[in-house]
Amino acid sequence: MSKLLIQAGTITTAERSYIADILCIDGLIAEIGTNLDSSGAEIINAEGALVIPGGIDPHTHMELPFMGTTATEDFFTGTAAGFAGGNTTIIDFVIPGPRDSMLDAFHTWRGWAQKAAGDYAFHVAVTSWSDKISEEMGILVREHGVTSFKHFMAYKGALMVDDAIMLHSFARAKELGAICNIHAENGEAVAHLQQKLLAEGITGPEGHPLSRPPSVEGEAAQRVITIAGLLDMPVYIVHVSTEDATAAITRARAAGQRVYGEVLAQHLVIDESVYWNKDFAFAAAHVMSPPFRPKHHQKALWAGLASGALQTTATDHCCFCAPQKAGGIGDFTKIPNGTAGIEDRMSILWHEGVATGRLTPNEFVAITSTNTARIFGLMPAKGLIAVGADADLVVWDPTATRTISAKTHHQNVDFNVFEGRTVTGFARTTIAAGKIVWHNNTLHAIRGAGRYIKRRL
Amino acid sequence: MSKLLIQAGTITTAERSYIADILCIDGLIAEIGTNLDSSGAEIINAEGALVIPGGIDPHTHMELPFMGTTATEDFFTGTAAGFAGGNTTIIDFVIPGPRDSMLDAFHTWRGWAQKAAGDYAFHVAVTSWSDKISEEMGILVREHGVTSFKHFMAYKGALMVDDAIMLHSFARAKELGAICNIHAENGEAVAHLQQKLLAEGITGPEGHPLSRPPSVEGEAAQRVITIAGLLDMPVYIVHVSTEDATAAITRARAAGQRVYGEVLAQHLVIDESVYWNKDFAFAAAHVMSPPFRPKHHQKALWAGLASGALQTTATDHCCFCAPQKAGGIGDFTKIPNGTAGIEDRMSILWHEGVATGRLTPNEFVAITSTNTARIFGLMPAKGLIAVGADADLVVWDPTATRTISAKTHHQNVDFNVFEGRTVTGFARTTIAAGKIVWHNNTLHAIRGAGRYIKRRL
Amino acid sequence: MSKLLIQAGTITTAERSYIADILCIDGLIAEIGTNLDSSGAEIINAEGALVIPGGIDPHTHMELPFMGTTATEDFFTGTAAGFAGGNTTIIDFVIPGPRDSMLDAFHTWRGWAQKAAGDYAFHVAVTSWSDKISEEMGILVREHGVTSFKHFMAYKGALMVDDAIMLHSFARAKELGAICNIHAENGEAVAHLQQKLLAEGITGPEGHPLSRPPSVEGEAAQRVITIAGLLDMPVYIVHVSTEDATAAITRARAAGQRVYGEVLAQHLVIDESVYWNKDFAFAAAHVMSPPFRPKHHQKALWAGLASGALQTTATDHCCFCAPQKAGGIGDFTKIPNGTAGIEDRMSILWHEGVATGRLTPNEFVAITSTNTARIFGLMPAKGLIAVGADADLVVWDPTATRTISAKTHHQNVDFNVFEGRTVTGFARTTIAAGKIVWHNNTLHAIRGAGRYIKRRL
Amino acid sequence: MSKLLIQAGTITTAERSYIADILCIDGLIAEIGTNLDSSGAEIINAEGALVIPGGIDPHTHMELPFMGTTATEDFFTGTAAGFAGGNTTIIDFVIPGPRDSMLDAFHTWRGWAQKAAGDYAFHVAVTSWSDKISEEMGILVREHGVTSFKHFMAYKGALMVDDAIMLHSFARAKELGAICNIHAENGEAVAHLQQKLLAEGITGPEGHPLSRPPSVEGEAAQRVITIAGLLDMPVYIVHVSTEDATAAITRARAAGQRVYGEVLAQHLVIDESVYWNKDFAFAAAHVMSPPFRPKHHQKALWAGLASGALQTTATDHCCFCAPQKAGGIGDFTKIPNGTAGIEDRMSILWHEGVATGRLTPNEFVAITSTNTARIFGLMPAKGLIAVGADADLVVWDPTATRTISAKTHHQNVDFNVFEGRTVTGFARTTIAAGKIVWHNNTLHAIRGAGRYIKRRL
Repeated sequence: MSKLLIQAGTITTAERSYIADILCIDGLIAEIGTNLDSSGAEIINAEGALVIPGGIDPHTHMELPFMGTTATEDFFTGTAAGFAGGNTTIIDFVIPGPRDSMLDAFHTWRGWAQKAAGDYAFHVAVTSWSDKISEEMGILVREHGVTSFKHFMAYKGALMVDDAIMLHSFARAKELGAICNIHAENGEAVAHLQQKLLAEGITGPEGHPLSRPPSVEGEAAQRVITIAGLLDMPVYIVHVSTEDATAAITRARAAGQRVYGEVLAQHLVIDESVYWNKDFAFAAAHVMSPPFRPKHHQKALWAGLASGALQTTATDHCCFCAPQKAGGIGDFTKIPNGTAGIEDRMSILWHEGVATGRLTPNEFVAITSTNTARIFGLMPAKGLIAVGADADLVVWDPTATRTISAKTHHQNVDFNVFEGRTVTGFARTTIAAGKIVWHNNTLHAIRGAGRYIKRRL
Repeated sequence: MSKLLIQAGTITTAERSYIADILCIDGLIAEIGTNLDSSGAEIINAEGALVIPGGIDPHTHMELPFMGTTATEDFFTGTAAGFAGGNTTIIDFVIPGPRDSMLDAFHTWRGWAQKAAGDYAFHVAVTSWSDKISEEMGILVREHGVTSFKHFMAYKGALMVDDAIMLHSFARAKELGAICNIHAENGEAVAHLQQKLLAEGITGPEGHPLSRPPSVEGEAAQRVITIAGLLDMPVYIVHVSTEDATAAITRARAAGQRVYGEVLAQHLVIDESVYWNKDFAFAAAHVMSPPFRPKHHQKALWAGLASGALQTTATDHCCFCAPQKAGGIGDFTKIPNGTAGIEDRMSILWHEGVATGRLTPNEFVAITSTNTARIFGLMPAKGLIAVGADADLVVWDPTATRTISAKTHHQNVDFNVFEGRTVTGFARTTIAAGKIVWHNNTLHAIRGAGRYIKRRL
Repeated sequence: MSKLLIQAGTITTAERSYIADILCIDGLIAEIGTNLDSSGAEIINAEGALVIPGGIDPHTHMELPFMGTTATEDFFTGTAAGFAGGNTTIIDFVIPGPRDSMLDAFHTWRGWAQKAAGDYAFHVAVTSWSDKISEEMGILVREHGVTSFKHFMAYKGALMVDDAIMLHSFARAKELGAICNIHAENGEAVAHLQQKLLAEGITGPEGHPLSRPPSVEGEAAQRVITIAGLLDMPVYIVHVSTEDATAAITRARAAGQRVYGEVLAQHLVIDESVYWNKDFAFAAAHVMSPPFRPKHHQKALWAGLASGALQTTATDHCCFCAPQKAGGIGDFTKIPNGTAGIEDRMSILWHEGVATGRLTPNEFVAITSTNTARIFGLMPAKGLIAVGADADLVVWDPTATRTISAKTHHQNVDFNVFEGRTVTGFARTTIAAGKIVWHNNTLHAIRGAGRYIKRRL
Repeated sequence: MSKLLIQAGTITTAERSYIADILCIDGLIAEIGTNLDSSGAEIINAEGALVIPGGIDPHTHMELPFMGTTATEDFFTGTAAGFAGGNTTIIDFVIPGPRDSMLDAFHTWRGWAQKAAGDYAFHVAVTSWSDKISEEMGILVREHGVTSFKHFMAYKGALMVDDAIMLHSFARAKELGAICNIHAENGEAVAHLQQKLLAEGITGPEGHPLSRPPSVEGEAAQRVITIAGLLDMPVYIVHVSTEDATAAITRARAAGQRVYGEVLAQHLVIDESVYWNKDFAFAAAHVMSPPFRPKHHQKALWAGLASGALQTTATDHCCFCAPQKAGGIGDFTKIPNGTAGIEDRMSILWHEGVATGRLTPNEFVAITSTNTARIFGLMPAKGLIAVGADADLVVWDPTATRTISAKTHHQNVDFNVFEGRTVTGFARTTIAAGKIVWHNNTLHAIRGAGRYIKRRL
């Protein structure tokens, strides 16, 4: 019997904050109270610190094969880096090609993920439509605990689906009780602008944001909201990066529709000026979709989180190193899309969100774990601090500072988009399934210790 | 030399109102002033009445082959009925099939239109994309005075174009200086809902509005506005029928984009309850796309006209008789889409717009002719009362009333969607190219007297 | 030692739902778990039912002297009726006259409230401005646990404050860490319209809504939001009844401002047609401010609750009987303003909110207690189900139905605005401070058992 | 008989553009046509230039006594400087003190204005309420052609009126058929912020914008729109300077309300950074209310003009020289409010509006004269180029450039807020009442030649 006692921390949930001890036994929270019996337990003193539910990153792409290369961060290194940043669970994406079996792809990803140190679940992408896809969706929901399906409105010629496919897939998901996720960018418009820019001789990284202006996201968000509304079902828009999409979501919610929006930590603090940096490697390292935006969009995203129009935060963690990014020299459309973030999301949100007064500590918990657990069926095991829940906990030091750098981070990538930022708010200790996996700046991640989490409808 | 003198009317233009005589010579306005010399002139006493520019209907479909049948109103009967309603010019649509040559289609329509009694121009539809289409667009603009191109986002499997085609076509139109028109409804969503409704056993006319809810139009309007915005060009949305689309237009205009919206007289006063009428013939007679809407949308449309968010009014005049409409018994998707309106638009707008105080007489002129002439390159011949302009004039009696009925109308169709309405505001005399073509309730339309109008960029 | 054990209910909080027992000892929740020891405890079997935190009504006016009469419901009868409806706490209002001492008024109300059966707190109204008021605000916050101040923008010549007073009072409240509540209606406009209507001979109850159109509330909401924004502080708008005010709140939140909105159960389901009822007594019984609204406003309010733009629900419970209402025969401005609701709020919200799918059970808890406790400083004693919290609990039967009627309700008033509605969702047992106060349709309310609750900043 | 012939210019009105000659006889336009007989006429060759209606500035304050001093520009110098900028008419403001007779004040201003070189009309301000004011409003409308009344929501303790006064005054204006103008800033909020800033030691010009943030204008705009809406009448908001107010106007118009907005040339191109200039004289020279704004507001104002949400442009021309401005050293609230602009409005609008593609030449005419003439009852004499209209014309060179400077301007003030800007678009010749008053960079203004213009309802 493994016992761990976290003493005297300020337990901070989405609901409230209070001081108490937490006793974890065999991976679960066994007791919460004051002056709990410490006999036989490993003790962590959390006095003066917060104890929060382990962060959940609902949007990662570990070891993803994409754009002719493979993301460098694998399920082991990625979940381990997540521990260092206060995360205990990820939801990654199974992405079959348009001609692939969803189930085959699911099993492939399950195989890759065996090495994970932390718990994980999967969204599965719908990239084409057929009776077989429809049938496989049913199997995934009923047998494999996959309760969410991803749709790409961008990446023409690769993963993009059109409105007809979305209508089919959404209708099927509704039947199954699953929720749909959408990458909202008008892929036809992006492709058109890419060709136009290349034809005009704009080949550098600045072509990336120029080919994906904010309205391209706003339009797609409005479209998918309309489609979900026609079918009378909720919808979840990933990586909302613009005032335009946030406004579309806000309008829909004000009309009574259930629309959820996710924000990446990166979009909250980085703006599009990075793409005009003269160093190709620097600019290319920031290439992801949607791209970084003019600064005023950040205000809308923060307000969206504070107002409740946007509910979750993620990272779209997808790592490509400089040699991979270099594949796009001379043609920005060939730069592998992706940035890292899993290790820094929680700190960025605390530093820029809580320390600035934009968010309360309880809201911080809501948007880093609880809301995600509720929307994606991870409750009651995750996103809570409650007796019976998984002992996924973080001792969060609200005043400790650190300076982010690729030199010191644990992510398996050579660049950090937050390089040089000194942030307040630090995961002093991370506990996953009752085990200390990060403490005193030291990782104790165990390859393969992570569990696949079947989700509930 | 043909001389016509209109005496002492209140000349009412988009700009102002004043009392004066108008002397027309050989089809043009020769002089405006007080106490003009009447020698040798036919005289019309307009005292107490308004004299306005002849109405321009920018959206008609005379003798259109559509949905397996052909519209009953031809260019002669249609333009003649237009005279009776105070119209002197129409802009009709050349609609090639996806595999047809635009130029061939243009010449086909030109042939049909030889019989027109009134002046006409053509928008030409882009229903597919190829280098040939691109080339033909150039020829149409440069050689044939076609300065506007139509795009259908609805009618899947027939006329519908996707975003990729619109991006190509819009970019080409911009190059040529032409303007793009759009029928904004998400055709994929409509098709999906049609199939769903039919599968559920909803086969009657009520399936028509149920398969095309307001958001389907709002979404498409937002999408095409986004596309035009990306290409930095104006765009014109035909038959705006919803608060949703009006709001999208208003938002775009408030952000500095040039977006134009057209409203049909029918949508301003008829609501969707007609489709639940138990008489199939009655309900089917109202089937057009977009369909009639819940009543509150009308308020948004009127406000749009008053505020300037919407600029023009039209009818989408497209006549199918009961036997044709009967083709959709048992399957609402087979009811030919279309309603008549050209004879009544001006009266409806005066009665419900000016007489109610929603619009001034000058605004009435702006939205029935002047704005259309300006947007579509018909100035300075049309849409004005000015020396040198075409003598297309209407003596408008602001107080005369009539009761609309299919029994008495001049339109070649067996139904009138305004049946039984008594309206104030009446085209007492219509003058086209200096000739009296409608007077004392009598038509003097001459087959073939209408001219094709090449438009200016 | 008093012990009460609630067995096997589905504990439903704002955060989540789970099945467990709750042991209450001496008025507090002592333990939550499965199969808790029942020795010595009174047992309530909650199997198949929900156990929720006791409802908190943040807006009541027990025995209020108003418009020349006094509300018939006193603190005893009112809190008792609250028990029957699943409420365990109210926040009432101390309303000094413009020339009165706030402290004196506070003590007067404290005296009246001695008879309360349930717990209560007070907002205190600012109805004038002076150094003394400023000083008394400080005393109320620091010594009496009053952390919220009310401001009336309506009731000209009585309670109304102008912008200058609000600016002073808000600035002082910010200094003290207190929150401001606002009744948002433009009182000058109301007074103007009242005089105009009376002058036109409109003296009946229909004059009430005609003198307080929706825009009067929307304007005031926008104004007070602006004022709070200038001072960079949160603000709470009571009884939001219109789409206009909801939109103003939504806009402000989307811009990053902290604005809270409260909705009355009455406004969610009753529309303005009641005022045109020919029976004066019926119409007058519905007179309250803001008045009931055209039906479409209800949609905006429900959407506001679901989206999070509006956070709390209340009743503005303020009872006047027919003879009192009759004082306004011949002059609608003299009808005492107020309706009852405390006994029915929770059922109305469950029936129309949860049973219809608009809200989840967790959201139901959030808007009936948790959010109110958080905003008004009642945590951690109220609004939660947690060890150490007050044992204020309701066994909520989600399927039981009852028909609302003044004949059977426990409120001390002769009319029920929900008369005749059969609603699903019923407070089977209400427990206040660990005591059963309502069970098997029987009240066990004890005069004077209620406690004054000092609130936290 | 005085004859003037303007040959071959491109006559540009709000409606259209065409090439023709204009013959002016005895102060009126006598004939418009091609190849007009030039015998006996002074000839102006306008080939290659536009001929537009003389600009109308609907918002000037010549020789205004304000804040303890008097504006340096008098009616003669001011209207003369207007000629140099292409203006032929102004509408100035009669501003009685709260205890003054409106009629007395009107006659006082009429006296001052005797010296004007150009035509002028007056708005009259309502600064208090009484039966006498109500009666005088009637006399002004019926006997003196004053058809618009001004209301200040700002300037607490001086000109400010509260909602009660506005309701009275608006209702009276509606009765009379007059239109109300409003300076929309919440004066209570401004006064509060002024005191707060001064108390904090912020005494320099930067205190000016800090005490009048954008929301203060947005709120007041919304409020006055609501009041006008309650009374079902149009309203005109002067010097709209913010996105906030523009959005309020746009929303009201989209709901069907008639709301007009005016923009100052200054607000379109100058931003608030001027107030942080270290040179007090420079910063103070820019002090006017509303103040200059963060740059993004300009985008909203331009879009408002292009979309039609805003209809007119003005200058609020009100000149104070450095020694006057110096009265506010050490206390920004004592800096006389006002900037000059009448000479440069038209050039700024052409250069930044037409030359950039934001506006068409016809829209330029609409917003510099025609719309103003229509809204304020100056038609058919002003705002048109039509036979019978006043011969108030400008030969506008669309390509000529000049550099604006206080050293060369004709305004009687020592500062120019547009100093150093090189602008394209120039009033080559200005003709007022058929007389050349500005030509070849030379003024021919005649003291007292201006006429008081009675306006029509």
